[in-house]
Amino acid sequence: METIVAPNVYSKACPTRQALDLIADRWTALVIGLLEDQPKRFSELQRGIGGISQKMLSQTLRQLERSGLVTRTVYAEVPPRVEYALTPLGKTLCAPLTAIRDWAEANINEIAAAQSAYDAANG
Amino acid sequence: METIVAPNVYSKACPTRQALDLIADRWTALVIGLLEDQPKRFSELQRGIGGISQKMLSQTLRQLERSGLVTRTVYAEVPPRVEYALTPLGKTLCAPLTAIRDWAEANINEIAAAQSAYDAANG
Repeated sequence: METIVAPNVYSKACPTRQALDLIADRWTALVIGLLEDQPKRFSELQRGIGGISQKMLSQTLRQLERSGLVTRTVYAEVPPRVEYALTPLGKTLCAPLTAIRDWAEANINEIAAAQSAYDAANG
Repeated sequence: METIVAPNVYSKACPTRQALDLIADRWTALVIGLLEDQPKRFSELQRGIGGISQKMLSQTLRQLERSGLVTRTVYAEVPPRVEYALTPLGKTLCAPLTAIRDWAEANINEIAAAQSAYDAANG
């Protein structure tokens, strides 16, 4: 008899947890957002995301490609052009990740005030 | 003359980016989700989140408290009881983070298939 286990991100062993680890991530949120409008080269992504290292961008793109969220296309030009683009699955992540980025931008004043008060009290 | 700069999570120096770093995070997504129903003790949170270390849970809770998303209340009992709860600001994060967790659970089959295909092609 087969045991059916419901997906559960709270379980370390559940594959959905590895998926959450990939998408609930600052770099994923920023990369997916930049690719929403149109495909981009590696160098465009790196310029567009302040503070991301080449290694971290490479790792993030590779994991997104491996998980079917991003395609990597090499155009046979001289020099070769490599472009990253969202897959249909990747596009379904745009709305939830935009909500996360928008939340950060909308609530920054309240967050900053809380941080100042906390730091003053816990100096 | 004052320069008005729009909030921009893509800028490393923007405070909204630090806010994004906090909320676009696997542990934040799991902790906020567990606190959505009711306040919880540290040990309840640790048991509820598979694979989180005591140190990582402490750090996550402290950052969430510092940023005004979670309160930490000590009840004068023997032994003292400490409870964590969402603030009104923290509650506004529930919907966007639930969307992220739900996305992971809803799309896991497609992600797993992509990962298997990628690993077979790049093994």
